[in-house]
Amino acid sequence: MSHTGIEVTNEQVALQSLRWNGHQLDLLDQRLLPEEIVYLPLETPVEVWEAIRHLKVRGAPAIGIAAAYGVFLGIRGLDARVDELLAEVQKQADYLATSRPTAVNLFWALDRMRARAEALASAGVNAADFKQALLDEAKNIQAEDEETNRLIGEHALTLFADGFGVLTHCNAGGLATAKYGTALAPFYLAKEKGVNIKVFADETRPVLQGARLTAFELQQAGVDVTLICDNMAGAVMSKGWIQAVIVGTDRVAANGDVANKIGTYSVAVLAKAHGIPFYVACPLSTIDLNTPTGSDIPIEERHEDEITQGFGKRTAPQGVKVYNPAFDVTPNEYVTAIITEKGIVRAPYNESLRSLFE
Amino acid sequence: MSHTGIEVTNEQVALQSLRWNGHQLDLLDQRLLPEEIVYLPLETPVEVWEAIRHLKVRGAPAIGIAAAYGVFLGIRGLDARVDELLAEVQKQADYLATSRPTAVNLFWALDRMRARAEALASAGVNAADFKQALLDEAKNIQAEDEETNRLIGEHALTLFADGFGVLTHCNAGGLATAKYGTALAPFYLAKEKGVNIKVFADETRPVLQGARLTAFELQQAGVDVTLICDNMAGAVMSKGWIQAVIVGTDRVAANGDVANKIGTYSVAVLAKAHGIPFYVACPLSTIDLNTPTGSDIPIEERHEDEITQGFGKRTAPQGVKVYNPAFDVTPNEYVTAIITEKGIVRAPYNESLRSLFE
Repeated sequence: MSHTGIEVTNEQVALQSLRWNGHQLDLLDQRLLPEEIVYLPLETPVEVWEAIRHLKVRGAPAIGIAAAYGVFLGIRGLDARVDELLAEVQKQADYLATSRPTAVNLFWALDRMRARAEALASAGVNAADFKQALLDEAKNIQAEDEETNRLIGEHALTLFADGFGVLTHCNAGGLATAKYGTALAPFYLAKEKGVNIKVFADETRPVLQGARLTAFELQQAGVDVTLICDNMAGAVMSKGWIQAVIVGTDRVAANGDVANKIGTYSVAVLAKAHGIPFYVACPLSTIDLNTPTGSDIPIEERHEDEITQGFGKRTAPQGVKVYNPAFDVTPNEYVTAIITEKGIVRAPYNESLRSLFE
Repeated sequence: MSHTGIEVTNEQVALQSLRWNGHQLDLLDQRLLPEEIVYLPLETPVEVWEAIRHLKVRGAPAIGIAAAYGVFLGIRGLDARVDELLAEVQKQADYLATSRPTAVNLFWALDRMRARAEALASAGVNAADFKQALLDEAKNIQAEDEETNRLIGEHALTLFADGFGVLTHCNAGGLATAKYGTALAPFYLAKEKGVNIKVFADETRPVLQGARLTAFELQQAGVDVTLICDNMAGAVMSKGWIQAVIVGTDRVAANGDVANKIGTYSVAVLAKAHGIPFYVACPLSTIDLNTPTGSDIPIEERHEDEITQGFGKRTAPQGVKVYNPAFDVTPNEYVTAIITEKGIVRAPYNESLRSLFE
C-alpha cells in the first residue's frame, strides 16, 4: 500500500473520510490526524483490507463504504464473463469481511454488494454494465449514509436543549461516516441552527479517536468542544456539566445491547449513576436482529503496542501483560434510547428495534 | 537543576524513590520511567521545589519526604546563628509548601520540620546540632514511612483472599513512598507470603503513572500485573475479574471524602455499581481533620500539554480547549474502608477517623 498519498492542507478541503475520484478510492488516513491530512489512493481490495485492518479508515459506516468500493476495485480490471465476475465479487467480499470482526456495517455493506451482483447476473446484464452497476451501488451506499446521518442528527437534536453539556466517547462523526456522523450529527445541526451545545470529548485511549478526530472535526466546524481524558468523565458528570451522553455503535443486538469502542460501558454506568440519559445513535444498518444479545457479538482484541507505545515512545515496561479489547458491550438497561434515521426507539428494544424494519 | 543525573541500570538497584547519600538527596526522576532510571542529585530547596512541581517525584508520602530534606538543604550551608537558621527553616518551608496544593503530606512533613526546628531553638542547641537534628528528622520521616507502609500492607492483606483480582489506579507504590507503598503494599506482602493476587493497573492518563510506575514496579517485584487503559475498568469489572479496588490518596477529609489522582472517582462509582469494595490506603499523615469535607480540598489543575502532547507527539489539535484536573474527590459513601498503619476504619468516618488520633 502506498505510504506517500496525496497531502493537502487544512484550508483546501472540507474533511471527508473517503471519496471516489473517478479512478480510485481516496481515503483519508485517520491515523495521521490531526497532524497530517493525507489521502491514500486505494486501487485494490488488498489495499482496502489493510486500510480497514490498520485503522486508516475506522467508524462502522465508513468501514462499510470502503469495503463496498473494495468489492468493485476487485473486479473492475478483470476481462471476464459476468459469472466469473460474480464469483470474484463473492470471493472479494469474503476476503474483505475478514478485515475486522465487530462492526456489522462491514458485513451489511458486503452483503448488499453481493445481493446486487447476484441480481445483476440473474438479469443477464453484460460485463461492462455489471461493473458500472456495482460502482453505482457503492456510491449509493455512501450517498445514503450521508442522508441517513442528517436524519439521525435531526432526531437526536430533539433530545437536547439549548445550553446542554453533552459528553461523547470515541469518534462517531463525519470521519466515521460519509458525512455528519451519527453521534456527532446533532452537534453539526445545532451549530447550523444556532443551538448552543457544549461538547465534552473523551480522548478515548488507546487510539485516541476522541482527541485526534472528534476534537479535531468539531473544532474545525466551530462547535464548542472540550477535550478530557477518559477517566475524567465521572468528575465532569459530578460537577453537573453533563446533561446527556451520546455515542455511536459498531453493532446493536436485537435486545438493544450495544457494542461500541472500549470505555463506552464505563461511561454508560457513570451516566446512570448520575441520572444522565445515555443515547446511542446509528443507522439501521448497524442494528443486527440476527445477533440476539451483546454476548453474541465478537469483541476484537488488538495488539498491546497500542497501549504500551502508542504515543511515539514506550510508556509501559517491556514485557508487561496487557489486556486490550477494542470494544465493550453496554447492556440494554443502560441505554436510554437508540436514535436512527427512522426515529427514536426505547425499551423494550426487542420490540422497538424490530418495528424499525417493518 | 541537573538534567544529567546519575544513570543506573535496572540490575544495579532496588528502585527507591529517594535516598540521602550523605551529601545530597538522590531523587529518582519518575518522569523518565520505565525507559530510564536516573537519580537526580538535589542540593538546594529550589531543586527540590522544581522536582515536586514537575512530577520528578510524586506520590503524597514521597513528596513530604523530599520536602523535609529540602528544608535541611536550605540551612546546611549557612554560617548563621540558630535564630537565623530557624527563620530560614520557616522561609524554606513556606516556599516548599507552594510546590503543589493538594497532597496534605507535604504540609504535614513541613510542619513537622518547623516544629522540630522551633523545639531545638527553644532548647538552646548550637547551630551544628540544630542542623544535624533537622537532617535526622527528615531521615526519621523517611524511615517511619517505610514502617508505616508495611503495617498498612499487613492490614490491607487481611481484606484480600487468595485468587483475588484487585484493581488499582495511579501509583501508590514504593515509588510514591519511602518503600512498599500504601495501596501496593499488600501486593508486595502477598508476594512474600505466597498469596496469589492478580493486579489490574489502570494506566492513569494523562501522566500514565499506572503504566510507567505501577506496572513497572510490580513487574520488577514479580507480582502478577495486567495493564489496562482507564476506560477498561468497567469492562474488566463486568467480566467478574475484580474482587476489590485499592487506591492511595493525597488527602482524606475529616468526613472520609478522599482526594486522589483524577479518575479515582470514576473507578469508585464503577466499583459500587458492580458491588465491589473500594478501599483507600494511607498513613495517618494523609488524613486532615482540619479539612471538613472533600469540597474544602483544593484541586490542582495542570497544563493542557499533559493531555495534548504528553509523550513526544501531539495527539490533539492545536488550540483545542482542555480540562485537566490532577485530582478528583470521591465522596465517603463510595469508600468501603480506609486502611492505615493503625488499622482499618469504616463509616461513619467523622467518628472513626478521629478515633485514630486518640
